[in-house]
Amino acid sequence: MSEPASFATESIDRLVVNTIKTLTIDAVEKAKSGHCGLPMGCADFSFVLWTKFLDINPANPKWHARDRFVLSAGHGSMLIYSWLHLAGFESVTLDKIKNFRQAHSGTPGHPESHETLGVEVTTGPLGQGTGNSVGLAIASKYYAATFNTPDFTLVDNKVYAIVSDGDLQEGISHEAASLAGHLGLDNLVWFYDDNEVSIEGKTSLSYSDNVPARFQGYNWHVIDLPDGHDHKAIETALTEAKSIKGKPTIIIGRTVIGQGSPKLQGQPKAHSDAFGPAEVAATKKNLGWPEDADFLIPARVTEFFAEKRKEWAAKEAAWNATFAEYSAKYPEKAALWDKFLKLEIPADLARKLPTFPAGKAAATRNSGGDVLKAVFAEVPFLIGGSADLAPSTKTWIKEYGSFLKGEYAGRNLHFGIREHAMGTVVAGIGYYGGLIGFGSTFFVFTDYMRPPIRLGALSSIPGIYVFTHDSIFVGEDGPTHEPVEHLATLRAIPNVMVIRPSDANESAYAWVAALNHKTGPTVLALTRQNIPTFDRTKVAGAENLLKGGYVLWDSKPGTTPELILIGTGSEVHLALGAAEKLAEEGKAVRVVALPSWDIYEAQTAEYKESVLPAAVTKRVAVEAGITFGWERYTGFAGKTVTMSTFGMSAPYEKVAEEFGFTVDNVLATAKSLL
Amino acid sequence: MSEPASFATESIDRLVVNTIKTLTIDAVEKAKSGHCGLPMGCADFSFVLWTKFLDINPANPKWHARDRFVLSAGHGSMLIYSWLHLAGFESVTLDKIKNFRQAHSGTPGHPESHETLGVEVTTGPLGQGTGNSVGLAIASKYYAATFNTPDFTLVDNKVYAIVSDGDLQEGISHEAASLAGHLGLDNLVWFYDDNEVSIEGKTSLSYSDNVPARFQGYNWHVIDLPDGHDHKAIETALTEAKSIKGKPTIIIGRTVIGQGSPKLQGQPKAHSDAFGPAEVAATKKNLGWPEDADFLIPARVTEFFAEKRKEWAAKEAAWNATFAEYSAKYPEKAALWDKFLKLEIPADLARKLPTFPAGKAAATRNSGGDVLKAVFAEVPFLIGGSADLAPSTKTWIKEYGSFLKGEYAGRNLHFGIREHAMGTVVAGIGYYGGLIGFGSTFFVFTDYMRPPIRLGALSSIPGIYVFTHDSIFVGEDGPTHEPVEHLATLRAIPNVMVIRPSDANESAYAWVAALNHKTGPTVLALTRQNIPTFDRTKVAGAENLLKGGYVLWDSKPGTTPELILIGTGSEVHLALGAAEKLAEEGKAVRVVALPSWDIYEAQTAEYKESVLPAAVTKRVAVEAGITFGWERYTGFAGKTVTMSTFGMSAPYEKVAEEFGFTVDNVLATAKSLL
Repeated sequence: MSEPASFATESIDRLVVNTIKTLTIDAVEKAKSGHCGLPMGCADFSFVLWTKFLDINPANPKWHARDRFVLSAGHGSMLIYSWLHLAGFESVTLDKIKNFRQAHSGTPGHPESHETLGVEVTTGPLGQGTGNSVGLAIASKYYAATFNTPDFTLVDNKVYAIVSDGDLQEGISHEAASLAGHLGLDNLVWFYDDNEVSIEGKTSLSYSDNVPARFQGYNWHVIDLPDGHDHKAIETALTEAKSIKGKPTIIIGRTVIGQGSPKLQGQPKAHSDAFGPAEVAATKKNLGWPEDADFLIPARVTEFFAEKRKEWAAKEAAWNATFAEYSAKYPEKAALWDKFLKLEIPADLARKLPTFPAGKAAATRNSGGDVLKAVFAEVPFLIGGSADLAPSTKTWIKEYGSFLKGEYAGRNLHFGIREHAMGTVVAGIGYYGGLIGFGSTFFVFTDYMRPPIRLGALSSIPGIYVFTHDSIFVGEDGPTHEPVEHLATLRAIPNVMVIRPSDANESAYAWVAALNHKTGPTVLALTRQNIPTFDRTKVAGAENLLKGGYVLWDSKPGTTPELILIGTGSEVHLALGAAEKLAEEGKAVRVVALPSWDIYEAQTAEYKESVLPAAVTKRVAVEAGITFGWERYTGFAGKTVTMSTFGMSAPYEKVAEEFGFTVDNVLATAKSLL
Repeated sequence: MSEPASFATESIDRLVVNTIKTLTIDAVEKAKSGHCGLPMGCADFSFVLWTKFLDINPANPKWHARDRFVLSAGHGSMLIYSWLHLAGFESVTLDKIKNFRQAHSGTPGHPESHETLGVEVTTGPLGQGTGNSVGLAIASKYYAATFNTPDFTLVDNKVYAIVSDGDLQEGISHEAASLAGHLGLDNLVWFYDDNEVSIEGKTSLSYSDNVPARFQGYNWHVIDLPDGHDHKAIETALTEAKSIKGKPTIIIGRTVIGQGSPKLQGQPKAHSDAFGPAEVAATKKNLGWPEDADFLIPARVTEFFAEKRKEWAAKEAAWNATFAEYSAKYPEKAALWDKFLKLEIPADLARKLPTFPAGKAAATRNSGGDVLKAVFAEVPFLIGGSADLAPSTKTWIKEYGSFLKGEYAGRNLHFGIREHAMGTVVAGIGYYGGLIGFGSTFFVFTDYMRPPIRLGALSSIPGIYVFTHDSIFVGEDGPTHEPVEHLATLRAIPNVMVIRPSDANESAYAWVAALNHKTGPTVLALTRQNIPTFDRTKVAGAENLLKGGYVLWDSKPGTTPELILIGTGSEVHLALGAAEKLAEEGKAVRVVALPSWDIYEAQTAEYKESVLPAAVTKRVAVEAGITFGWERYTGFAGKTVTMSTFGMSAPYEKVAEEFGFTVDNVLATAKSLL
């Protein structure tokens, strides 16, 4: 199809913007679903950002010193796919755009980082991208503090995010913005797509925040942009944002949703769904586009980006040259850079971690803290902290300093009482690459941070969650603070590795497993209370944790047991105690420690049969958590010593009695099967 | 023990405040755990609030027109127990205070409304109380709009909450405050206990919000209180807060945590844990208290509250007199008041709901919406809405108007894109009493609102959650929007009733079950996509939903089946389709619909055996959710057609094929067992 004559005289700005808009409406029309409103409303801002500010190299999407772009309002995914295609990312061909929202297309309904190279962050559930962007900015600051030298600035990149009304209504935006302002993350810029439209109608139906006042309250630099479509004003705003020191910036841009659609622009109906053939045609006509051309990319636009790609490639080339000089002068730092990028975990890490003497009781939060200190020494790309509970979760490693405003070399993050932000920041650090983030709080508060854990699992990015106070044995704080269903609810998320070590020595291997799990989140569930440290000369070694489940002890090794007791975490010792009593009575009984269902399930069928033989159906599971899910291992014939209700407020020894977490009760339950 | 002479001349204000402080340190000392810091820091504010503003009647804690007090920072529970005791609530005897944090004491570590009459709201997980207080204020406004007349003001109560640094750092505080400001809830007053201390250290470590700017951004009235211990200034602030029209008020009071402890006041260490005998003694000395007196309540304090109780009782008596006049003049409204208080659901509700013709496919979100409209007509004390997804979740019932600023008779709430606030508001409405709240969003976004669902379950309060788009059949929006683990993760919470109806007619009974479930939250999981409406003359009736699970169809009624297919929601028809094919081959096969595990588990063993006979171990479960948990019904011998991964972005029919949710695959799975 030949292009209209007007294309030759139209400004390139306008041509590119209209290409974004028409690619969007064509893709949504073909898919018969999707969201045109945001990409059309943000086409202008993103034009200025992508063509004048964003330092990337489409030929090498993983160039580590690049800027990061986050579309927090992920429903506007066609904006990102359009840009990736025009910019020349191989991951998004025009064919893939034509297959928007189809199976295996690489262009899913909401952007998924693992599906589409160039998508930095998986977004869609609103607000997540706000927190992820803070995580990316923290990662960048830590990189800069670690690698920049007086003579070399290797890391000076920016994190840009487009955030919507929905993002800013979500609570996570408060936690994320408050933390970013506190930390003075001047490498972070949000563009607020203030289009005054939401799904139920005008945003005024439910929302009347004074956003500038709110963000001034967070110590952000606030730029008001009365016309979010004015390229000059956008450029001025972005230039100002880049120049601000010590504060993140929010550019509040008034935009028109669905801009370009004669009938729908500015209307709630522009938000989602295909416009229909008539309005698609009317929109194209309105934009000076051929009405019958689908997925049209004007030749001048193609040429423009061919030139742009040269500029982009040159930027990386210049950086590579700088890095070569840097490597020559600072070979150790350059080696460290590589180690970071590879997330290189020492093969002999386990040998470098503390061991704990048998017989001495220890809470796994305490042993975990000791292990973490040793891990910090071995794994310099691990940074993290707690949501104001470090004294309880034992995750503050004082030798490595705090990450504070202007002190970005510290490896201990202080998230404040912001669990949700913590989760999104841990994810953001994972998305950044070359770093592993961890976050820590009480186990029951995972409920505040499930969305980032889930999205991290979906996106196969690393992130370690250290959850202490992992059961009703929290004790006096009572049921509001006592997890009962949380092991189940985390085991239920695909690709989350949950580990609940049985004693202090398993807690060391739990960290080994966590650090080597780089394709999804890991959850460590650790006790508040002291539990016995097993004598590993008398029971199987703690290294077996790496298989997820194992035979801890057989009363009659080599024979098929009559009954199997299965336990996790702080209940394994109860299973062992009961087993020892049964052994005294001559029973052939086995104790299986099952610290990680996820790791165990991934073992071979043969191995699993060797641990839990199908023929042995007399089984008792012991876990201070909800029964739900345990039937996988106990079947119809087995029993459980588990929870069916919430816990209670009382000293933990009393709680144990109340709910039957005693050797006597485990023993009685086992005997009822024999 | 005789009281020191100084007690006779000390001001009563000071005596009461010091009684609160010393009861707190004594209780925490005896329990060897707990939190002294907040009760000591807020003793002054709460003195003014409880003795000069709060309209309650300790002799009748459930007087419906009372003010509501929420201690969002629930760790300061000794503040509330001290007040309840001094005020004369029978629920908190001195003996119970002496048994603080012990089993079955009624004084758990964090306040639990179901454990302690007079505790309005269960708190502890930070931020929850902020949202609950907004729910209480909404409930009060709806009551006022429904029952007040030009000549009678029956409802004019206030909701007061104490919120901490932690509460205000939590994201939920943003959603709650933004919504309250938007709605102009002038019956809501927060006291911000601005003590500059958190667990990891000074709040400045992680927090530097300009709180007045932030709350001005939310359209709140902000009162700055430089000395949060100055009774006169507190009284002036509360008087001002009561007088403000059209805005909620936050009083920002600078306080000293642990005030009165010579060594610990103002320090992070004052936050929690027993002070130890020496500091307890030093604190008492500092407060002019006998050092060796434990749990001392001065006689003048006892007398003071005896007088106070008369005042309080008189307040309710006056209200009762007004209500009597009101009843005489407006008998219908008075009857409605009673109906509200009893949450009276018509016994014949099911007969008043729509029925849906067999053969016509319908999405259960649509049938659910039709049912909800009929329910609104029958159940006037049901109010609720959606988190900006009403057009998709079908929960906006236009005949009943919107609840907007100044238009508080509307029954449709517009929560905005604030799922977490929605959950806490639904809970708050439940805590208020005389109302049932509901909230609606996509099922996957339950992850944003688990804390309030959990606390509602713990507290046994009603609340209905209408979650549509309940599976991978969301389709094109992709895995970020496709729940897979969510059925499991909600079933895992004790006392949450999850219902996933199999077709349109079951959706009506699902609402019947939900409305009659007044002792915990109910979750309705409804489909986005059309599913068949069963011909109930050929399969068992939809009213069987009320048993949770039932035999939908037997190919050979009266004989023991060879195999049982179990399904929920949109997969029941696949099970039935496969069963019909097996029947054609002469097999004796049963289809069990299991819309609610929770209801089903509560049936008799006999009934359950009649549905799922233990002898039949060939079982196939079909559900478009994660396998986790299904082993309860399939055992070692059964199989599942379920999910083991996240979903994908594609049209839902394609998604069904990809993951095997087809009659053919269910059939093949069943045959593999036969």
